[in-house]
Amino acid sequence: MTSLAINYQNIITASQRIKGHAVMTPLLESSMLNQQLGGRVLFKAENLQRTGSFKFRGAFNKLSKLAQTKQLKGVVAYSSGNHAQGVAAAAAHFGVPATIIMPADAPQIKIANTKALGGKVVLYNRNTENREAIGQQLAQQHNLTLIPPYNDADIMAGQGTLGLEAAHQLEALGLVPDQAISPIGGGGLITGSATALKHHFPDVTFWGAEPEGHNDAARSISAGQRLANKNPPISICDAIVTPMVGELTFPIMQHYLAGAKAVSDQYVLAAMAICMQQLKLVVEPGGCVGLAAILDKSLKVKGKTTLVILSGGNADPAMLGLALKK
Amino acid sequence: MTSLAINYQNIITASQRIKGHAVMTPLLESSMLNQQLGGRVLFKAENLQRTGSFKFRGAFNKLSKLAQTKQLKGVVAYSSGNHAQGVAAAAAHFGVPATIIMPADAPQIKIANTKALGGKVVLYNRNTENREAIGQQLAQQHNLTLIPPYNDADIMAGQGTLGLEAAHQLEALGLVPDQAISPIGGGGLITGSATALKHHFPDVTFWGAEPEGHNDAARSISAGQRLANKNPPISICDAIVTPMVGELTFPIMQHYLAGAKAVSDQYVLAAMAICMQQLKLVVEPGGCVGLAAILDKSLKVKGKTTLVILSGGNADPAMLGLALKK
Repeated sequence: MTSLAINYQNIITASQRIKGHAVMTPLLESSMLNQQLGGRVLFKAENLQRTGSFKFRGAFNKLSKLAQTKQLKGVVAYSSGNHAQGVAAAAAHFGVPATIIMPADAPQIKIANTKALGGKVVLYNRNTENREAIGQQLAQQHNLTLIPPYNDADIMAGQGTLGLEAAHQLEALGLVPDQAISPIGGGGLITGSATALKHHFPDVTFWGAEPEGHNDAARSISAGQRLANKNPPISICDAIVTPMVGELTFPIMQHYLAGAKAVSDQYVLAAMAICMQQLKLVVEPGGCVGLAAILDKSLKVKGKTTLVILSGGNADPAMLGLALKK
Repeated sequence: MTSLAINYQNIITASQRIKGHAVMTPLLESSMLNQQLGGRVLFKAENLQRTGSFKFRGAFNKLSKLAQTKQLKGVVAYSSGNHAQGVAAAAAHFGVPATIIMPADAPQIKIANTKALGGKVVLYNRNTENREAIGQQLAQQHNLTLIPPYNDADIMAGQGTLGLEAAHQLEALGLVPDQAISPIGGGGLITGSATALKHHFPDVTFWGAEPEGHNDAARSISAGQRLANKNPPISICDAIVTPMVGELTFPIMQHYLAGAKAVSDQYVLAAMAICMQQLKLVVEPGGCVGLAAILDKSLKVKGKTTLVILSGGNADPAMLGLALKK
């Protein structure tokens, strides 16, 4: 077996670093929704995290470690918007300038908030330009440190603190989850969280969820090797349409995940509506793919205890309005 | 001084009764919003409570006590929708049938959820019929026990568990609030919560918030006697447009409150939008009048620590859509 990039102890260390800086987000459930679904579904409401998504956890962990060991002149990151805000907020905390490379078509709320958090935003064209290349060029030119979105042990361990918290919250309720589901983009969140959750609950079945046509994780896990998406369709799940899972995240996916479910935009919008109407939470499209997999019945919850990670809430009003019309 | 209907010990007793049944709702803040407002504003996110509002607390406390002391044949309640759901859910827990009298123009989500929770809904015309009379008639005819919406010591003590929780959560953060603000309808929530919060933080300035034209609480507190609203305008804040504060709640308002702020629908919609976009929370119009008072600058938060009670989240999609267009 390939050695894995992170272990449980890395997540404990990360949780000590982020303590008092990140929000301990609540684990919520709706008795009415449980009744409708015929099972107990607990939602980790990470849309309530600082900067509106889990990304603050990893960014803060990474910058906290970097700030201890080296003089940071500045950091640079590329992101569709959530990692952008996480890095901008963490960099502001450590007094380090942050340059963020974002697609010009990112949700307005993500661009505006990244700027509001003090980030210097550089827009690029998602179809014609390469964000990694722009990032590396800026890093070299200005002596900036690149903060990768997922393929980094400290980022993965930071995101894993979400799974650690959820494990403690489930234990406090006296619950042992049968299964868990988390959005998959590059794999930082799901691999960190699975590492933590599997330590507490070795028998939990852990699933990923990703948008239809962007099912690189599912195919990669089945094939036993990293596969890219070919001609992926446009998806409303902007946060998790990464082209391929990471080199460091993939072995952990192989080790811990049962597979990944692919969900359609229609079910994602329906999941957003349920989040607003029943859970009273604003969750962005990419944040509620796990609930979408329950709604389209690809994940069975009847008679089971299920943990669903709602990973972020940065959606523009127009997108929320679209979901409310469902 | 008139003796007060409830004291701190009643709230402690109520909190023991509801423990494990009601949600311990989180106390949330947004560092970005704090920065914009120039003060620290902590939101008690009671929209995340079971049945989508604080009303479950009081109803559960009341029914829990009643179930200990008498054989309940059934309960009846009148409500614009949140008390309805609270009573229906609590009655279902104790295996008691619940009949709920609701205005025909209540938000659809409130009527639908009351039915889904097992309540038998009787609709009435808000303009031509008297809900109290209908309630008393039904109670007599069918030997049902009336569960009042606010003018009842057990209901007030139950709602006060919200303030008790907030006090403990503020203490856990090492914070002493300068001020607090809560929606006022009949006064159950604010008087219970003020009783608890003032016990922990005697110097906190506690304000109510109510819709423009429905400022009976403000006028009553100023006048030193209960005054009704005259020809009140239509308000979007359906949860808190009660005609007059309660006999039992008013003396506690006089004792603990600094006064009440009246807010316009426009600021309520703006507050709802901020809840969705910045806090990632769905809050109904009547639930976010406290934040509206901050936005219209009638409550100054600069340099202060402020507790804002967001009391419920049962808003129809059309109302949320309206707020998102602001």
